[in-house]
Amino acid sequence: MKRTVYFVSESTGITAETMGHSLLSQFDTVDFEQVYMPYINTEARARALCQRMDEAYGRDGVRPIVFATMLDQEIGDILRRGNCFYLELFEQFVEPLSMELGVAPSRKSGRSHAITKPSMYTKRIEAINFAMANDDGMRPDNFRYADVVLVGVSRSGKTPTCLYLAMHYGLRAANHPITEEDFERGDLPPELIGAKQHAFGLTIDAQRLQAIREERRRGSEYASPERCRRDIREAQTMFKRHAIPVLNTTSQSIEEIASQILRAVKSPNGTTA
Amino acid sequence: MKRTVYFVSESTGITAETMGHSLLSQFDTVDFEQVYMPYINTEARARALCQRMDEAYGRDGVRPIVFATMLDQEIGDILRRGNCFYLELFEQFVEPLSMELGVAPSRKSGRSHAITKPSMYTKRIEAINFAMANDDGMRPDNFRYADVVLVGVSRSGKTPTCLYLAMHYGLRAANHPITEEDFERGDLPPELIGAKQHAFGLTIDAQRLQAIREERRRGSEYASPERCRRDIREAQTMFKRHAIPVLNTTSQSIEEIASQILRAVKSPNGTTA
Repeated sequence: MKRTVYFVSESTGITAETMGHSLLSQFDTVDFEQVYMPYINTEARARALCQRMDEAYGRDGVRPIVFATMLDQEIGDILRRGNCFYLELFEQFVEPLSMELGVAPSRKSGRSHAITKPSMYTKRIEAINFAMANDDGMRPDNFRYADVVLVGVSRSGKTPTCLYLAMHYGLRAANHPITEEDFERGDLPPELIGAKQHAFGLTIDAQRLQAIREERRRGSEYASPERCRRDIREAQTMFKRHAIPVLNTTSQSIEEIASQILRAVKSPNGTTA
Repeated sequence: MKRTVYFVSESTGITAETMGHSLLSQFDTVDFEQVYMPYINTEARARALCQRMDEAYGRDGVRPIVFATMLDQEIGDILRRGNCFYLELFEQFVEPLSMELGVAPSRKSGRSHAITKPSMYTKRIEAINFAMANDDGMRPDNFRYADVVLVGVSRSGKTPTCLYLAMHYGLRAANHPITEEDFERGDLPPELIGAKQHAFGLTIDAQRLQAIREERRRGSEYASPERCRRDIREAQTMFKRHAIPVLNTTSQSIEEIASQILRAVKSPNGTTA
């Protein structure tokens, strides 16, 4: 049986979606049909959504679930009165927080993901540009300007992790793929060794690496079990030699790897770089 | 006066951080020192954090704020008893949701951002690879395989938006920069016109574009007011000719632009592609 779920907000809906996803992940035996509903910022849009909720009820035979972060009481009330199980995620925290801070909330919607701090936003955009320009070891001389350099064999997850760190945390993240050149030299490139205090090694189980490489180049030597095992083994030796901390990406998501890196690079006073 | 804030979780802490950020954005007159604290998954780590909270109290002269999503009661209680204003964001929704669903929660931590659905995770990684390979119009013949093609003048925000759509929603997002070649032809490339039903035009105010381009190539013709105005004007003409919907990135974040695109590309039954 399907259960329809709506993530609803007056603006991007990212908070409703993130919280809603987290809550749903506690109930992994249920089959959820997840619908993302940003910009429900007029009464007409709220009423149109109520109509869709009715349809979902008819289809599923059970009322849909709504995860909402609504600041406009009137629009929120339209949804709340709709044919659904309504969870307002935001409201009950605003008042206690306001009391604690001794400041009234602005009640403006769409502040969470707007450009409220242009300098931080610019930093993120510049970090994305840096990550793009320094993907795949394109400019080893730039490793010294990086906040983080990820190093690992081909297909160990370096690029997505760099992009995530740049996009969400404004970290200047570069990466270096360990390739034949490094294997022949028997070591990492000197530019990377020079930046090793910011380096993180990514490793991956041979079987998983093989499956990923097979997807890309079926039947190739590159995807063979022997080659995968050798690449990983030699990379590990290099990481160990330079005391580069290693993270295993086999069963971890980009978010999990990024969080661990972030935890490690945060400055002594604990704030993230 | 600074007010220290901790985002705390047993795993990535992304939910605590997203919700906490959203709540703080309602109080934009307060100067928050935001500290990201993932992987507080042992009692020893919780106690170490309590010590840091004491230090923050001493430094700020006011107790720190903790936004937490803790599933382990005992670890959570250590923090709750600490010197802080503690907001548990998750707990109170789990029970009502469990009642509504008729299913007990798994109580496992770290499910929100783990790889729980390998096929969706693989889709995201493939979308990131697609976005990287199809950035900056590198392969116009691939536009037809894209879920979304962003088109706009140089520095209008195409690349970060494509990467965001790929990373978070698994959309295959390509982009095409409108360059001299298009201006001379007086139109978009035929591959893009062929994929125009998936295209979105990004525009930006001339003054803002000029500022961004000045950052990159100070004093160049590329960054001149005339050139910026012309680029934008001609791009607008092309968007109009092909009825390509246009989004203005001047004062909108990547997240806001992406949400609007997502809203527009969702399939008729409302689920995102």
